Amino acid sequence: MLGDRMAGVPGSVVVPVLQGRRPLLVEVQALLGPGRGSAAANGNGSSPRPQALGLDASRANLLLAVLSWRTAVGDLLGKPAPEFFVAAVGGISVSEPAADLAIALAMASIADGRSIPPDLVAFGELGLAGEVRTVPGAERRLAEARRAGFSRALVPASTPGDSTTTGVALHRVRTLSEALDAIHDHRVGRTSPVTMPGWSTVAAAASR
Amino acid sequence: MLGDRMAGVPGSVVVPVLQGRRPLLVEVQALLGPGRGSAAANGNGSSPRPQALGLDASRANLLLAVLSWRTAVGDLLGKPAPEFFVAAVGGISVSEPAADLAIALAMASIADGRSIPPDLVAFGELGLAGEVRTVPGAERRLAEARRAGFSRALVPASTPGDSTTTGVALHRVRTLSEALDAIHDHRVGRTSPVTMPGWSTVAAAASR
Amino acid sequence: MLGDRMAGVPGSVVVPVLQGRRPLLVEVQALLGPGRGSAAANGNGSSPRPQALGLDASRANLLLAVLSWRTAVGDLLGKPAPEFFVAAVGGISVSEPAADLAIALAMASIADGRSIPPDLVAFGELGLAGEVRTVPGAERRLAEARRAGFSRALVPASTPGDSTTTGVALHRVRTLSEALDAIHDHRVGRTSPVTMPGWSTVAAAASR
Amino acid sequence: MLGDRMAGVPGSVVVPVLQGRRPLLVEVQALLGPGRGSAAANGNGSSPRPQALGLDASRANLLLAVLSWRTAVGDLLGKPAPEFFVAAVGGISVSEPAADLAIALAMASIADGRSIPPDLVAFGELGLAGEVRTVPGAERRLAEARRAGFSRALVPASTPGDSTTTGVALHRVRTLSEALDAIHDHRVGRTSPVTMPGWSTVAAAASR
Amino acid sequence: MLGDRMAGVPGSVVVPVLQGRRPLLVEVQALLGPGRGSAAANGNGSSPRPQALGLDASRANLLLAVLSWRTAVGDLLGKPAPEFFVAAVGGISVSEPAADLAIALAMASIADGRSIPPDLVAFGELGLAGEVRTVPGAERRLAEARRAGFSRALVPASTPGDSTTTGVALHRVRTLSEALDAIHDHRVGRTSPVTMPGWSTVAAAASR
Amino acid sequence: MLGDRMAGVPGSVVVPVLQGRRPLLVEVQALLGPGRGSAAANGNGSSPRPQALGLDASRANLLLAVLSWRTAVGDLLGKPAPEFFVAAVGGISVSEPAADLAIALAMASIADGRSIPPDLVAFGELGLAGEVRTVPGAERRLAEARRAGFSRALVPASTPGDSTTTGVALHRVRTLSEALDAIHDHRVGRTSPVTMPGWSTVAAAASR
Repeated sequence: MLGDRMAGVPGSVVVPVLQGRRPLLVEVQALLGPGRGSAAANGNGSSPRPQALGLDASRANLLLAVLSWRTAVGDLLGKPAPEFFVAAVGGISVSEPAADLAIALAMASIADGRSIPPDLVAFGELGLAGEVRTVPGAERRLAEARRAGFSRALVPASTPGDSTTTGVALHRVRTLSEALDAIHDHRVGRTSPVTMPGWSTVAAAASR
Repeated sequence: MLGDRMAGVPGSVVVPVLQGRRPLLVEVQALLGPGRGSAAANGNGSSPRPQALGLDASRANLLLAVLSWRTAVGDLLGKPAPEFFVAAVGGISVSEPAADLAIALAMASIADGRSIPPDLVAFGELGLAGEVRTVPGAERRLAEARRAGFSRALVPASTPGDSTTTGVALHRVRTLSEALDAIHDHRVGRTSPVTMPGWSTVAAAASR
Repeated sequence: MLGDRMAGVPGSVVVPVLQGRRPLLVEVQALLGPGRGSAAANGNGSSPRPQALGLDASRANLLLAVLSWRTAVGDLLGKPAPEFFVAAVGGISVSEPAADLAIALAMASIADGRSIPPDLVAFGELGLAGEVRTVPGAERRLAEARRAGFSRALVPASTPGDSTTTGVALHRVRTLSEALDAIHDHRVGRTSPVTMPGWSTVAAAASR
Repeated sequence: MLGDRMAGVPGSVVVPVLQGRRPLLVEVQALLGPGRGSAAANGNGSSPRPQALGLDASRANLLLAVLSWRTAVGDLLGKPAPEFFVAAVGGISVSEPAADLAIALAMASIADGRSIPPDLVAFGELGLAGEVRTVPGAERRLAEARRAGFSRALVPASTPGDSTTTGVALHRVRTLSEALDAIHDHRVGRTSPVTMPGWSTVAAAASR
Repeated sequence: MLGDRMAGVPGSVVVPVLQGRRPLLVEVQALLGPGRGSAAANGNGSSPRPQALGLDASRANLLLAVLSWRTAVGDLLGKPAPEFFVAAVGGISVSEPAADLAIALAMASIADGRSIPPDLVAFGELGLAGEVRTVPGAERRLAEARRAGFSRALVPASTPGDSTTTGVALHRVRTLSEALDAIHDHRVGRTSPVTMPGWSTVAAAASR
Repeated sequence: MLGDRMAGVPGSVVVPVLQGRRPLLVEVQALLGPGRGSAAANGNGSSPRPQALGLDASRANLLLAVLSWRTAVGDLLGKPAPEFFVAAVGGISVSEPAADLAIALAMASIADGRSIPPDLVAFGELGLAGEVRTVPGAERRLAEARRAGFSRALVPASTPGDSTTTGVALHRVRTLSEALDAIHDHRVGRTSPVTMPGWSTVAAAASR
């Protein structure tokens, strides 16, 4: 399933979810429309509710709010924000809070036009303050990522282990902002290469 | 689960709920958008309906109405009120009226920018007059809070016991206003330290 | 459950409902917002649909229509009417038409700012002409009210028995208007004590 | 259940329905608001959708359309039509097309302010052309009406039998207009007594 | 059930449907309001969504689109189109695509004010290009129509057999337009008798 | 079922889906209205949500977004886009992501007025970046297409086999744009014959 990923395309993040106890790698994608949302239509005066396939639309809406209000991406999005689509690839349904971080990163990636490094997975629940919270089964998630050839992971700060035990380089983050900073510098308009050494570099698409 | 809480961040309150007979500590969070709601969109001419995850959206809406109309927080919120999100952390679903007080306090905390003391739990049903009503299982709720290291609790006035028997300092309140006063002085614009001795002090975020 | 009622607060009425054959006393509450409803939002050009918790929102909407169009309270409410919330206290779900009279009285009480006497229960189905209709199980309802210490009841005109047999003083009413008159004089703006001798007197809250 | 009917009040019609094979007399009521509907809100440019309790709201909406477009009552209602409520009394749910005629008559009665004779039942399905169509079980319906003391019935033209066999005077009608004519002269503004000899006379309520 | 049909009334078409393997004749009716739809309310800038009873409202909406965009009836309807109701008579639920042709013909009939010949049945699925598609069980459908006294049928072009074997005269059509032409000349405003010899003649109702 | 297809009509594409493990050829159709959508009605400021029968409306909406934002067809559609209907012929329900490519091609075909070659099937999941992703069961899908007489197939780039083994000429595509180019040149306003040799030529309908 992951073999069809297009390298260097913004808006795609892989998350190791748990279906029961079985780990499964799922690609989460975001799409951003050129238009501005209609404030009247969703009733909260700001942004249109993201449309979701295989993901919980209410949760995606909350994650967009956290992204808008708790990180610098909010300035990029403006008010009202453009139209968002988020989807899990492959007809899979993901309802775990553990996918929060990946969904928010996919939204941020499509918003600033920079792709997420293709050898990275991300997992963690997001709280409304933007904090990244522990989720169960970190070990199994990381093992599945390693088995599929991923070499690094954005994980909650509390995640135990290191690259020796997990076989994957761990980047521990406490907040969504830290996660965004770990990937690239998010100052609006800046288009320099990403800051994590060795990661793929993608010039930001022209901001609209 | 509670280990990831960010100290001093407004909008977070812990409530001991009962799942069947088993007590469980759940963190309730609120998030407040910068924008003003669109009155036309929710049809009641005042505020947008809060969006809820893991909580009952209709109940959250009613609690916001009680907060707006029965306490001084209504003045802070203005009309129409800003956008609200409320969520239970950890993918948990809470439907007990016993969580009313905690949800309303989380909303009030995010509205005035002051955090709730981190060693506090709160429980109690709210009536439409703003009164805090008795809920079953107070003893089990308090025991669970003590076991997790919480040292005080906002509880309905009728709750029996004292700190000797429960191991937790009880602050009995009859109304939501009393609960808010017990935490800090709610006069609009005031940014002094909270008034309960020994509690963590958080300067109010700049009111919008 | 009824021990937490706040005396003298408008908008609260107790109704003895039947859950199967078991009688249960339920407090019904109403809350009225300061704002005016948005006519466009509910599509009937008059009032916003009441929001309901533990009660049937469609039925509450119909009861509000009966109250507006069949009694003098309609003049108080104006057009469009303000926002209404109605709720059953304690997380209970009430679907019996027998609760109609209590719900309508709670709405009327919050609308004119006068409380309902605290020792009163009320039950009866309302027809669209405003008539109070017989409901089954009057005897069991009254027995439960007496057991809980209530001393009077507003009941449908056809209800058999008297205070000797029921232990509760019966006030038989044929219409919602008669029920309102039985409690207090509803002329708009009047703030004199309630007219039923011996009942608690509550000065009407300042009408808006 | 039928003992609480208020004599001479417009908007009430009794229909013998079948619950399985058991006949049951149900009172159908209509209520009409003073306001005009908001055309934008229901999307068909004409009238607000009636609100229904215990009846099918979609069916009630279609019956209102037939009443508006196939009979003279449409002129009374104007465009957009006022708000309508229709309800089955007693917490009963009626889904039989056989109740169509009674629901439409209740709407017509509340619209022109004249009551339906209290000793009358009505049944029959309505087609979109306004025709009254045969329904099963006419014999059982009429027997139940007779047992409850009703003395006449508006029935589909094809209904067999006569007052000797059924014990109820049968008024056979082919269309809704004929049914309305059979009850009273519907010329707008006319307030003379109803035209069926021996029926109760109700001066039309002041038209709004 | 079919005995109550009113001869010469536009908007009524009979379709032989299959309930499981059993054929059943169902009368489909359409009703057209005098008003123009509100474009804002249905969100597609053209016509109000038809309201349906016993038929699938989404399917009816699609059939109206095909009628409007693939045949000359679209000119009659104008933009936005008037309000449509469609219903299956007798409390029956029809979900078969085989009823498409009959529903579209009923809409066309009410739109141009000419009735469909009373001895005609019609069946066939409609594609979005307006093509009439084969449906299963043609033989059983035609046998049922013959048994009930119908003498002709509009059927998909691929339907086998002839009047000798089926007992019903077959009019094979490839598109909805051909079906409309087979019944009468659809040029707007023309009110001459229908063109199929021997069919009942209905002067078109005054076009609005 | 496929025998009723009208040759040369835009908006029709055949997809081999899997019902369980059984392959089934389904015709997907699109219809495009002359009107422009109402931006206010769907709340995302761009296009009306397509209406879908037998297909997932949310998925169809996402596919329209991908078509609009990731290919040149977006320029044809303009903003807001016209009304779209998409349907699966024959009363079949299709929920497989494998139908994505066919649905998007049907929409593109109706948008530019050129038909899809009648001997072509297409399958593949679409990602939000417009990439065509692998789906399971390619072999069985192609075998079914060959059995029904189809001679070519648009398939995901990763699909194994060649025309010798599958009996169908395979056109492998990596993106939706490549798929559109494989069928015909999509430059707006261009009406030359399609570019794939041997395919049916359809002059583009007059662009609006």
